[in-house]
Amino acid sequence: MPKITFLPSGAAAQVPAGTNVADAARLAGVMIDLPCGGKGTCGKCLVRVAEGSLESKQAAILTGEQKAEGFVHACMSSVAGDAVIVVPDNALEKDAYADDRIDLFEGAVPAAAAGLSPVSRKICVDVQKPGREDGLSDLDRLNRSLDPFLNGKGARYPLSVLRKLSEALRGDDGRITVTTADDGDALCIVDVKSGHDKGRTLGVAVDLGTTTISVQLIDLEDANTLSTRNGYNEQIHCGLDVISRINYASARERLEDLRARAVHSINRLIREALDDACVSREDATCCHISGNTVMTHLLLGLNPEYIRLEPYTPTVLQAPPFAAGELGIEIHPEAPVFLSPCVGSYVGGDITAGILVTDLAKGKEEISLFIDIGTNGEIVLGNADFLMTCACSAGPAFEGGGIDCGMRATTGAIDRATIDRETGKARYTVIGGGKASGICGSGLIDLIAGLFLTGWIDSSGRFDRERPSPFIRADGRRATYTIVGADASGTGRPVILGETDVENFMRAKAAIYSAAALMLKEAGLGFVDLSVFYVAGGFGRFLDIENAIAIGLLPDIAPDKFNYVGNASLSGTRLCLLSEEFGRTRKALSGRMTYIDLSNYAGYMDQYMAALFLPHTDIRRFPSVEKILRASGT
Amino acid sequence: MPKITFLPSGAAAQVPAGTNVADAARLAGVMIDLPCGGKGTCGKCLVRVAEGSLESKQAAILTGEQKAEGFVHACMSSVAGDAVIVVPDNALEKDAYADDRIDLFEGAVPAAAAGLSPVSRKICVDVQKPGREDGLSDLDRLNRSLDPFLNGKGARYPLSVLRKLSEALRGDDGRITVTTADDGDALCIVDVKSGHDKGRTLGVAVDLGTTTISVQLIDLEDANTLSTRNGYNEQIHCGLDVISRINYASARERLEDLRARAVHSINRLIREALDDACVSREDATCCHISGNTVMTHLLLGLNPEYIRLEPYTPTVLQAPPFAAGELGIEIHPEAPVFLSPCVGSYVGGDITAGILVTDLAKGKEEISLFIDIGTNGEIVLGNADFLMTCACSAGPAFEGGGIDCGMRATTGAIDRATIDRETGKARYTVIGGGKASGICGSGLIDLIAGLFLTGWIDSSGRFDRERPSPFIRADGRRATYTIVGADASGTGRPVILGETDVENFMRAKAAIYSAAALMLKEAGLGFVDLSVFYVAGGFGRFLDIENAIAIGLLPDIAPDKFNYVGNASLSGTRLCLLSEEFGRTRKALSGRMTYIDLSNYAGYMDQYMAALFLPHTDIRRFPSVEKILRASGT
Repeated sequence: MPKITFLPSGAAAQVPAGTNVADAARLAGVMIDLPCGGKGTCGKCLVRVAEGSLESKQAAILTGEQKAEGFVHACMSSVAGDAVIVVPDNALEKDAYADDRIDLFEGAVPAAAAGLSPVSRKICVDVQKPGREDGLSDLDRLNRSLDPFLNGKGARYPLSVLRKLSEALRGDDGRITVTTADDGDALCIVDVKSGHDKGRTLGVAVDLGTTTISVQLIDLEDANTLSTRNGYNEQIHCGLDVISRINYASARERLEDLRARAVHSINRLIREALDDACVSREDATCCHISGNTVMTHLLLGLNPEYIRLEPYTPTVLQAPPFAAGELGIEIHPEAPVFLSPCVGSYVGGDITAGILVTDLAKGKEEISLFIDIGTNGEIVLGNADFLMTCACSAGPAFEGGGIDCGMRATTGAIDRATIDRETGKARYTVIGGGKASGICGSGLIDLIAGLFLTGWIDSSGRFDRERPSPFIRADGRRATYTIVGADASGTGRPVILGETDVENFMRAKAAIYSAAALMLKEAGLGFVDLSVFYVAGGFGRFLDIENAIAIGLLPDIAPDKFNYVGNASLSGTRLCLLSEEFGRTRKALSGRMTYIDLSNYAGYMDQYMAALFLPHTDIRRFPSVEKILRASGT
Repeated sequence: MPKITFLPSGAAAQVPAGTNVADAARLAGVMIDLPCGGKGTCGKCLVRVAEGSLESKQAAILTGEQKAEGFVHACMSSVAGDAVIVVPDNALEKDAYADDRIDLFEGAVPAAAAGLSPVSRKICVDVQKPGREDGLSDLDRLNRSLDPFLNGKGARYPLSVLRKLSEALRGDDGRITVTTADDGDALCIVDVKSGHDKGRTLGVAVDLGTTTISVQLIDLEDANTLSTRNGYNEQIHCGLDVISRINYASARERLEDLRARAVHSINRLIREALDDACVSREDATCCHISGNTVMTHLLLGLNPEYIRLEPYTPTVLQAPPFAAGELGIEIHPEAPVFLSPCVGSYVGGDITAGILVTDLAKGKEEISLFIDIGTNGEIVLGNADFLMTCACSAGPAFEGGGIDCGMRATTGAIDRATIDRETGKARYTVIGGGKASGICGSGLIDLIAGLFLTGWIDSSGRFDRERPSPFIRADGRRATYTIVGADASGTGRPVILGETDVENFMRAKAAIYSAAALMLKEAGLGFVDLSVFYVAGGFGRFLDIENAIAIGLLPDIAPDKFNYVGNASLSGTRLCLLSEEFGRTRKALSGRMTYIDLSNYAGYMDQYMAALFLPHTDIRRFPSVEKILRASGT
């Protein structure tokens, strides 16, 4: 088999001819970043052939100079024979996505402690003593003791519990603590221990996002959150959005790579959360995970390809629960892991969980709209009589992806900002209070709204090149705005916002706004008909609604109609751990939702193009913004 | 850690001080035979300390000479520091228990082909095509197609099936073959494949005996037996009977050793059976295993200790089914493995399966008795109104264990014999027709009955030392009878029967007879009240009922009342694969049986002692034998 050596590290792998070079590199431990999922479209994985040759499908993105120097796309090249490949530093996976602990805003979570009926609980029973010739096994005796707790369901015993049973029953003379988890069909017996020392019963809520994963460790007896941890999804190096991930997953070993990355990312955060609370993994005896449909497929190792291909049919919408040990989730191995049900290929379990924190879950007459702004934007519209849902691809801009100095809402991120009308200088706050390292979603909204309302950028997102400002520099065709100089930043490099960033951001906000507008139109409604407009997303603790309106992300309705609910997916997932009733509601809601495929609607592209301005080509839709602009004379 | 070197191989292991020497040897790959389970009672594991020293609990069985030479029981010694240990050849596990394929007699198995409702079957369905916006996942579409086959039960999908589903549904345009197995609660979806090419649906029946394991591969569509394979249970080196195994299992790693040996033994036979039928393991999609209560515990890795300790409470009597992959059984990993329900600590799943082939399963008025003669003897007595059961420990003599030239009923075994009254010479038949290598259970019965009826041994089992015979040699206090000389045998060593062998055999037959007699007495009945006397056991194809009566193994009733059903456990297990109805009957029967603990009955020891003669101390119980003896003048 050909041997491929990667420089500068010298790491090598022997692989069959025809192996993709990025895969060969992974085998050698050289992790090449593939933000586009390996489709040859982003140009981030350029490598240089130093010796030997590769079989390459050349992508148009290469310059003549790059070609002359021997650069090829790793993702579009395959092994032909022995070769030595130089991997430039900027083609490697970076720890730019390093994690940090943040206080994520979870919105207004209903106080559930009053009527808790958690999925997992500990039951203390005194099992009758073994009797000679009573014809009862240990299991029979335990089943008799558990009968009053079964509510007519069966008890399901994994092998590991049967193996512990004889000692557990005899360790404290029949006094035993049984950890159960109700999986809907049966009561899973997760563990048995001698004695009546209950200890804590913990559950883990996971919001499995395309970009960000959030994990919460919950005490199921008092509904206390013991720890919240957030971090990037390690799949990010295999594509920034779900379509890139689907492309990346086209080979079986790469599907396994994505599955392992999701599991590894979740486990890392779970481990941190367990450490925060000084508990062991065996204490966490149930888990609910909410992710979009693609994330749910990848976590289970299911081929997501048909989600992308007409007629967009996923393998599962409602997956059965699996034991944590089977999925590789590092809590108690017998703990059931529940996956929030998905509604369609692009409306997933994060949405069915998320709307649990809204009026949409309460069967009200008033019409509400819920919008979850992330890498994908998902919208749910309805009331007691109807529930419609749709999705759009916003890209990772709101989570800091695809933005030069973008970052998640974590320590060092600029999360609020205002712009000085005269000088263009930005004033800002930084999460954690230290030096700024980058800009998170809420900071971007504030910065772009501020620059727009003060006239430093126009409605097409172009910086004003006529008015001199020490913060704006036009460099060829592109202008750049400096928020923090290199000397004052946390990274030693300036924190800047380029016109390309603004364009990326505008595409994201246009996708969201136009999807919401079209959805309402389909229902014969307008924004004015809404009783509550819920906004969810990982912006951080704050979202300036008026600025979001100013840039045309949110519609121009009365600000008090907006309800920012933060990471609603995580909050709703947490509720499902605390009360089985929420789990049933989630399932019922998912069954009631009608999925609207926007790509079927001829009007969507028009709506989208019209929204690619600040705030919108049709300024009459944003009268309050028009009023501000007119008042300031910009 | 101390290093222990084993000679002559030189294999070594580093183990903590205090480690049992037999365990240390196993770690070094030196397999020391422990027929008594490591209790220091059999004296088979003597090893010699060449250098260093061991911590030894000395057993009384050692001679002064052995002690002087440095011999100790490996099973009673533990590591104290570095040592060199000589392991004599006769202390090692031998391939005396090597396997061979035999035609096991399965008795009169009801022809089940007429009304088959097998546990596993293949269903060919045409799944509706995926439709845009129909809101259905692959799983939803398959579930709709399977609905008519579910009989109101739920379908259970393992992760592996979900992972295959999208490709299976698209490989032949929705035409799909679904392999199911009904586990009682739900329909397990074992596998999915594109197309309507059904192929065979196979099941595996396993009789997991203490000494012998039998495996049958069954075509579930036509009830054909594709292969039957038998072999020794590899646990045999860890103790010959269930009590020895329980003793051996007292340490956790030894319990795991026993579990692995059971699984390995079963897998070896399954592999042979699959090879015989030229099919792959994935074709076998369900499995029923019947074993006694201890074997069932060991297969599941459950601590069997409390079966042996007052009040003799097993961990499980009725275990739930587990996936083959979870148990390590090498058929389709998702195939459910069902374990025949046990009735008590000493009446197991082999019996609840075995009586399926008798009138006891048919709810008749007439009273029948079923007796399964193996390492343990189990008895069921009853009719439509009552079912009583008991067990006794016969030891492995009927399967060739504990008999110098004993062997299983396999190629080379003497299975039928007669004795010449004048010379004492034996005439015999050999399984397979070649040279004799040893004696199986039915051969032993014939030989001992023949020698007794012709006066060469007396009613206490002693050889006649007065009449000269070239075949009998008195060697000190013990006499030996030569059946086949070294020159004519298949092993190059003579096939002999010693007085010790006869004694061991008499203990075995006395245990069986006295248990049956006591059981009837408890029910207020006698042998004459029986309509049918079923005899099951691994004797081979033949069992000479009159000889079995002559030695007092079976009672002296009309020979036509006996029905030899061979390996009834295997036959009954096979029925459960072919028809779920039999599985339900088995469960119902196990619930109806009353377990009688003979050790509770003061009279048992008297009955047993009285039966330690040929045929019995009370010859009036055996009038037909008395008549023969009187007629021949012996």
